[in-house]
Amino acid sequence: MSDRNCLIKNAIVNGKKQDLLIENNIIKKIGNIDDAIDKEETKVIDGNNKIVIPGLINTHTHIPMTLFRGVADDLPLMDWLNNYIWPMEAKLNADIVYAGTLLGCLEMIKSGTTTFNDMYFFLDGIVKAVDEMGMRAVLSYGMIDLFDGEKRKKELKNAEENIKMIKKLNNERIGVALGPHAPYTCSKELLMEVHEMAKKYNIPIHIHMNETLDEIKMVKEKTGMRPFEYLNSFGFFDGVSVIAAHCVHLSDEEIKIIKEKKINVSHNPISNLKLASGIAPIPKLVENGINVTLGTDGCGSNNNLNLFEEIKISSLIHKGATLNPTIINTKQSFEFATKNGAKALDLKCGELKEGYLADIALIDLNKPFLIPKENIYSHLVYSFNGNVDTVIIDGNVVMENGKMLNVNEEKIYEKAEKAYYKLIN
Amino acid sequence: MSDRNCLIKNAIVNGKKQDLLIENNIIKKIGNIDDAIDKEETKVIDGNNKIVIPGLINTHTHIPMTLFRGVADDLPLMDWLNNYIWPMEAKLNADIVYAGTLLGCLEMIKSGTTTFNDMYFFLDGIVKAVDEMGMRAVLSYGMIDLFDGEKRKKELKNAEENIKMIKKLNNERIGVALGPHAPYTCSKELLMEVHEMAKKYNIPIHIHMNETLDEIKMVKEKTGMRPFEYLNSFGFFDGVSVIAAHCVHLSDEEIKIIKEKKINVSHNPISNLKLASGIAPIPKLVENGINVTLGTDGCGSNNNLNLFEEIKISSLIHKGATLNPTIINTKQSFEFATKNGAKALDLKCGELKEGYLADIALIDLNKPFLIPKENIYSHLVYSFNGNVDTVIIDGNVVMENGKMLNVNEEKIYEKAEKAYYKLIN
Repeated sequence: MSDRNCLIKNAIVNGKKQDLLIENNIIKKIGNIDDAIDKEETKVIDGNNKIVIPGLINTHTHIPMTLFRGVADDLPLMDWLNNYIWPMEAKLNADIVYAGTLLGCLEMIKSGTTTFNDMYFFLDGIVKAVDEMGMRAVLSYGMIDLFDGEKRKKELKNAEENIKMIKKLNNERIGVALGPHAPYTCSKELLMEVHEMAKKYNIPIHIHMNETLDEIKMVKEKTGMRPFEYLNSFGFFDGVSVIAAHCVHLSDEEIKIIKEKKINVSHNPISNLKLASGIAPIPKLVENGINVTLGTDGCGSNNNLNLFEEIKISSLIHKGATLNPTIINTKQSFEFATKNGAKALDLKCGELKEGYLADIALIDLNKPFLIPKENIYSHLVYSFNGNVDTVIIDGNVVMENGKMLNVNEEKIYEKAEKAYYKLIN
Repeated sequence: MSDRNCLIKNAIVNGKKQDLLIENNIIKKIGNIDDAIDKEETKVIDGNNKIVIPGLINTHTHIPMTLFRGVADDLPLMDWLNNYIWPMEAKLNADIVYAGTLLGCLEMIKSGTTTFNDMYFFLDGIVKAVDEMGMRAVLSYGMIDLFDGEKRKKELKNAEENIKMIKKLNNERIGVALGPHAPYTCSKELLMEVHEMAKKYNIPIHIHMNETLDEIKMVKEKTGMRPFEYLNSFGFFDGVSVIAAHCVHLSDEEIKIIKEKKINVSHNPISNLKLASGIAPIPKLVENGINVTLGTDGCGSNNNLNLFEEIKISSLIHKGATLNPTIINTKQSFEFATKNGAKALDLKCGELKEGYLADIALIDLNKPFLIPKENIYSHLVYSFNGNVDTVIIDGNVVMENGKMLNVNEEKIYEKAEKAYYKLIN
């Protein structure tokens, strides 16, 4: 929590020019706020020519993979995994993961993201970096047992230790989830124990679902059911909160399950295009009232963490794929990245409302691609490049006018470069 | 032409750290260049931590429409045209077009584009702005006769006057082309006269082709042929250089014509998605050795002029649409926006080579999304946000370290805003 209050004067907030007051980590008031506020105790930010937006929420990342940016593009999935990603992942340790997370957090803050939902390994390294960078995150340890009983025990033990480690921190910005990788890499026994553990600790489950046609085929061959039907058959979705990443290929029956079980979908359009997984049926999910959120996935398959690109693509791709120019309008795709993300992670943020968490970004409107300065919410979706000016997370100003306040950017680049060379050599 | 020479020291040029010397408007030398060069006569730019790229070439724009950014999104095409675009276009004049072109040029320069191929009206306004901004452009007057003989005469007269006006300028940076709008809006007689005029003046033709299924149906009903077959039936493509924008829906027979007649294709993936026109069969065109280039289209349907977004999308969308992750690799999509664009416009630029035009951009690599600083050419395609640092066009430094050198940015914003309010009121 911030030790100072913060007043943003004369910015565009919720469509009109007004002020926004932050007290501790909460948006205290929005409106015309008297200058009589104690200036000693209050940091004042000039909001002229700026718009305030809720900080973006990235609901599917593998943040340390920011180090993997550009190492392998335009390859078939198995070639990409076997010859590039897995050999590099075998060399990971907590220090490398720490360096990659610093870089990833820096990139997210600079592009207006204040919260991310992650699945990876070496969570001690991730926790350390997230805390230093001042970001908000929900972290899960990624479990894969490949149907091996010994591995399963190890993975579940690891997961539970990580839950305890994070709970013990008692850091309001850092939450924990369970991360069983996917139905084609995790045994039924593991998934059932995950479900119990999620209920026991009252935490969400973050899982990859229906990303590729191949994996769906594998599950169908093994179980006779499609992935959502299979998980539903043993109550995996009952009484817990689930964030299902990808959901590219879905049957009508599966969409019904997602709707009924109130499963949150993390749409990752750029990763799904780059890995040639396909185009998710987002308009159908929206029609069914399903909570759609946005994720970048890891930098191995994107190759950045700029959630504004996902916003634009999610408003474009479904128009092109269905030949209907009216679907997924700017309000919807912007809400995918804000309000809906907050709902999925059960956080009181993602909207500029009194009483909500002070997770916000300010954008300078004096940019050629934001002129004319009307229809700004359209510009944010279809024209903005993601380069935000000021970011406040949990009431703390972490970046002001493009400059990070509490960390040295150059040192983060150096650490990331060093870690990268350890991975590839 | 520049009155000073320019030496870029220690930048990444064509994959290795070296220097690049510009003499007048030409890249004179690339390599390790002696510091003994006369410093009085030579501007030295520090290229450390920077990469030099050829300036991007946008082969399909309607640049004054930059003023139309965000006025109408997510609408059916005819609603968009009838109720928003056409009423605004009816209020255009040379002053408004001048203001919109200033804004468009500013946006292009800031995102690394040095040349654009435009089709619009009030070319005197466009010429004035392009000249002031120091950009390179090929301009065409957009002709539509809607099969009316009187209109046809007027349009052809207008086109020829514009050709003469631009030829008379004798400005090496400003070329001229003929811009018959499309086969569904122009009569056969107009198209035949355009063809004659293109040969007479030895200038290229810039035309919209096969953007939507509806227009193809219209041409087929009228002529019994698909658009490329129809134009080919009266020799429209013979002995002239043609840039065909969009080409979203093509039969195999039409691809054969494009290949045989060496027609240049301007791929506009974002506009085609936003207006729900569809996804062009670019992998097939590339397989056939056809020259594919990139365009943003106007800001009414994009909504920006950042060609780096087209590069990324063109490397993504065809993978997703065909479920093949290996097609349209980073080298290909980057060449669409550089080398291939230059070829289409018959310009000696688009590559960093001695003897080529000095149209280049420098990018600062100290950005989180460009770290690790390896595989930089991948980062330019898949991760860069388009925000370049320094731009040189025709040997002149027009922007240095993010600051425009010869124009006042704030004044351009003001002019654009004023012009915008004239359009909507």
